[in-house]
Formats: sequence, C-alpha cells, structure tokens
Amino acid sequence: MKRILIIGIGAGNPDHLTLQAVKAIAAADVFFILDKGEAKHDLVQLRQDLVDAHARAPYRLVEARDPDRDRTTPAYAGAVEDWRSRRADIYERLVRDELGDGETGAFLVWGDPSLYDSTLAIVEEVLGRGTVRFEYDVVPGISSVSALAARHRTSLTQVARPLHITTGRRLSEEGPGESDDIVVMLDARHAFASLPDADGFEIYWGAYLGTPDEILVAGPVEEVAGRIRDVRAEARERKGWIMDTYLLRRAPHAERPGSPS
Amino acid sequence: MKRILIIGIGAGNPDHLTLQAVKAIAAADVFFILDKGEAKHDLVQLRQDLVDAHARAPYRLVEARDPDRDRTTPAYAGAVEDWRSRRADIYERLVRDELGDGETGAFLVWGDPSLYDSTLAIVEEVLGRGTVRFEYDVVPGISSVSALAARHRTSLTQVARPLHITTGRRLSEEGPGESDDIVVMLDARHAFASLPDADGFEIYWGAYLGTPDEILVAGPVEEVAGRIRDVRAEARERKGWIMDTYLLRRAPHAERPGSPS
Ligand SMILES: C[S@@+](CC[C@H](N)C(=O)[O-])C[C@H]1O[C@@H](n2cnc3c(N)ncnc32)[C@H](O)[C@@H]1O
Ligand SMILES: C[S@@+](CC[C@H](N)C(=O)[O-])C[C@H]1O[C@@H](n2cnc3c(N)ncnc32)[C@H](O)[C@@H]1O
Repeated sequence: MKRILIIGIGAGNPDHLTLQAVKAIAAADVFFILDKGEAKHDLVQLRQDLVDAHARAPYRLVEARDPDRDRTTPAYAGAVEDWRSRRADIYERLVRDELGDGETGAFLVWGDPSLYDSTLAIVEEVLGRGTVRFEYDVVPGISSVSALAARHRTSLTQVARPLHITTGRRLSEEGPGESDDIVVMLDARHAFASLPDADGFEIYWGAYLGTPDEILVAGPVEEVAGRIRDVRAEARERKGWIMDTYLLRRAPHAERPGSPS
Repeated sequence: MKRILIIGIGAGNPDHLTLQAVKAIAAADVFFILDKGEAKHDLVQLRQDLVDAHARAPYRLVEARDPDRDRTTPAYAGAVEDWRSRRADIYERLVRDELGDGETGAFLVWGDPSLYDSTLAIVEEVLGRGTVRFEYDVVPGISSVSALAARHRTSLTQVARPLHITTGRRLSEEGPGESDDIVVMLDARHAFASLPDADGFEIYWGAYLGTPDEILVAGPVEEVAGRIRDVRAEARERKGWIMDTYLLRRAPHAERPGSPS
C-alpha cells in the first residue's frame, strides 16, 4: 500500500511546525513540491527549508508545476473546480509514478490544510477515480488566522459570540451582515475599505505573517484603511506577491443593521 | 521587566506542540498552572507532561485554583465577565508575587489562545490595572477546530464559501441562519439534534480530539444524532468530563431558508 501525508506547515514561520509535522516529515520517502510560478518562489523555499531541516535521508524531492488558474473569469467557483481537476491529474500521476508500494509521500500544505486549501479535495478526487490506491492522513497546522491573532495578541472570538471567516470577494459582495467578528482571507481588492459602515469596525491586519517581512497594522478602519492600502501596494510591488489576512471587529458602540436604536 | 508568554499547546495531542511553543517552554522560568477542579484533571496533566518534556531546569511550577464560574445564571456573558475579573485578581497576584524581575512566566493555553479562551483578555485586564508591569507575547497553537478537520480529513471551508464558528448555545438560540459550514464549540446540550432542518446537514463530530480517548462520528445529522448523544453520554459518564466539537455542513441539495426554489 502507498501512503500519503498531507502536512500543515504553518503560515510562514518555520517554527510554526508542530512536533507531529516534524515526525511526519521524517517519515516521508518522497516530497511532492508544487511550484506556483516565480512569484511564489519564497513559499516554495520555505517548504524546501523544512525538508532540509527535518527529512531523514534517503528521501526524494519531486517538483511539479501547478497548472495556472484562470483568474480572468467571473465564474470563480467554476474556474477553481476546473483548476482542481487539472491538479488532480498531476497528483494522480505523481502518486502513481513517483511513489513506490510501501512508501510514504508527503504534501506540505501552507498554514492549516482545512482552510481554503484544495489539497484534501484533490486527494479525494484522485482516490475517487480509482486508478491508484493509497491511504492518507492529515496533520493540522497553524493557520494564518491563528498567526494573525497571536501577532496582534487578540482573541478572534468575544465571549459567547461567533466568528465568521470569509473571503475578500464575499465581503465585497455581501457586506459584513450581522457578524461582529470577521476574518477575511484571499482579499485582492481591499474589501475592508468599501465596508458600508466602515467607521464601525476595528481592523487587525497582517501581511507575510510569521516571515521576516511581516507587517502589522491595527486601528479603526476609517483611520488606517488608507495606510494599509499604501503599505500593501508598496510591499506587493517590492516583493512581487503578497499574502494578507485581517480581522474586522465591530466597535462595541456600533449598531448592527436592523438593531433597535 | 517581567515577561509573560501565553503559549497555545494544541488540543490534546502532545505532538500538537509547535517548535515555537517548545522554545517558549524552554525559555520560561515559571509555569502558572490553573486547576479547574478534579473533572479537568487530565487537562492539567497534559500541561504537566509538556513541562516535564520541554522545560529547562531550573524552573518553578506555581499552581493556583481557578475560581468557579456561576453556570446557573442565564446571563452567560455577564457571568463570564465576572469570572474573568476574579481570574484577573489571581493572575495579578501570580505575576506580582511569583515572577521576579527579568524572569519569564508562562501560561499554557489549551488549543489556540485566540479561540474561546479568556487568557488574553485577563492578561490585558491585569495590564490595564497598572498595578504590575510586564511585557507579553502570544504563541499560536493547534485549535480543536483544526484537529477536528484533520482527523475527519475534511476541509472546513468549501471553495469561495465562508465558515461560521459559534457556540452550542448560539446555535440553539439562533439556528444555522444562512451558513452552509458551521463549527460548533462549547456545546453542552446537543444543539445539533434540534436543528430545524436537521436533515439538510452532515455532521463531523469529535470528542477528546488528539487524546487516546478520541471519538469520531460522521454522517447525516438525521442518521447519526442519536448515536452521538449515546456515545457522548456514555463517555462523559465514564471519564467525568467531555470536550467535543463538530462541523455542520449543509448537504449540497439542501435549500437555505429563503433561497429560491
Ligand atoms: C489559499 S489560502 C490558504 C490558507 C492557509 N491554508 C492557512 O491556513 O492560512 C491563502 C490566503 O491565506 C492567507 N495567508 C496565508 N498565509 C499568510 C501569511 N503568512 N500572512 C498573511 N496572510 C496569509 C491570505 O489571506 C491568503 O490569501
Ligand atoms: C473554552 S473552549 C477552548 C478552545 C481552545 N482554545 C481551542 O483552540 O480549541 C473549549 C471548547 O473547545 C472544544 N475543544 C477543546 N479541546 C477539544 C478536544 N480535544 N476535543 C474536542 N473538542 C475540544 C470544545 O468544544 C470545548 O467545549
């Protein structure tokens, strides 16, 4: 039987790695490294560093090029599904041709594999095709959400209150709704700056969390939105890519839409 | 200056500890262990084991008894605030009397310190009182939510869709609303079993995640709700306490309230 480990590696700090992940890396015979193109070079480099630090020789590194995703279509979910299936073709080939019987292969997944990452769905799709048999396990990782909260030294949840995690696209389209505490990921277009009642929110923003390039900004949205836009544009220009996440917290005095006044 | 480290230790598996947490434990002079009463003995034991495994001698262990929380009042948030302030009295005393200047004290926090944990708020409250000065840092941890997803090998998020994290109490009172993916914590009363449209949800349930007692159940709520109640009651009886978490996922065919038919 072949075995696959899907290992969460944390969100940028090599010390986000758990002891469970260290052991999983040491147990792998083959590492599958998927390159997303030069812009994401730093992200591939972290994986390489973790393998260098924790893998047990002899091991093999197999690099593959991730297919490009069509970012121009408005049918976002459809484009992601299509991309997922082309990735499944690659994963299927990797597991079939590059992993021997009785061997363990590892995918190192950014952050936590359960948050906005398609590796689990792709591995399930490959299994479902029935063309290659394997077992697999998942090792949880520190998500960028946990990293964000730790660096801002804030709780994500308030007493007995819910937390909503969403994407920049959704926040732009749907607004904050009734949520008082909202984490936003995958935001390429500053959704925080166009909140209808922006003045009611505090923002805790973080980019490149856990890395030497980490940037943190916090404050009332109306006061810091401009600064975040500037800092973000400058950093993105300088490094060629950016990953940022933020928590929006409705200020205690702010009224929810529809709440009695 | 005194220094405090608030260290997330993961949700039950000693190997959930990150390398950052291992280093933080090794850097501490004093560990503050708060005992919540005999029922939670196992939880205190894990902290003790982590200190035994990773602390660097000489170090001190200071145990204190957490004040009891009034669980009978319907004013949940108010009771938690009151409890928090009595805990702040204890933390203040610990940091003032048990931690020397130039020393580092550590609080080992279950799961991730940013999810339904009051340590950060308490430490802020102590700082705000101005009676004792210290610096502090937060080390993120694997939450029970990440642990749950990893053990069920499922993503918490679907493509481009939000995730809602809430409490059992809220779910009972407010229902699932428009959310398709809901994580429920702190549920003492099987809120999943009284969902108005229970038949539309899949549940991924986990108790004692990461520990040798771990129990996992998954399936359509209508099919497995009874089994979860039974398993939960039996385990709780046997061990004297239980911690469980679950993901509810609206089945793809299910209609949201108000969605066009
Ligand atoms: C495809 S998702 C993957 C999330 C990942 N699985 C996790 O647990 O963090 C990528 C998004 O995660 C967030 N992100 C990941 N790493 C980050 C970091 N180091 N700093 C800030 N945001 C990060 C950003 O919102 C980014 O758009
Ligand atoms: C006070 S909250 C603390 C959560 C913690 N900070 C975390 O990140 O998981 C306690 C709740 O977390 C969940 N929980 C914590 N540890 C768990 C475990 N090992 N298995 C299942 N649920 C757990 C349960 O829902 C429990 O009611």
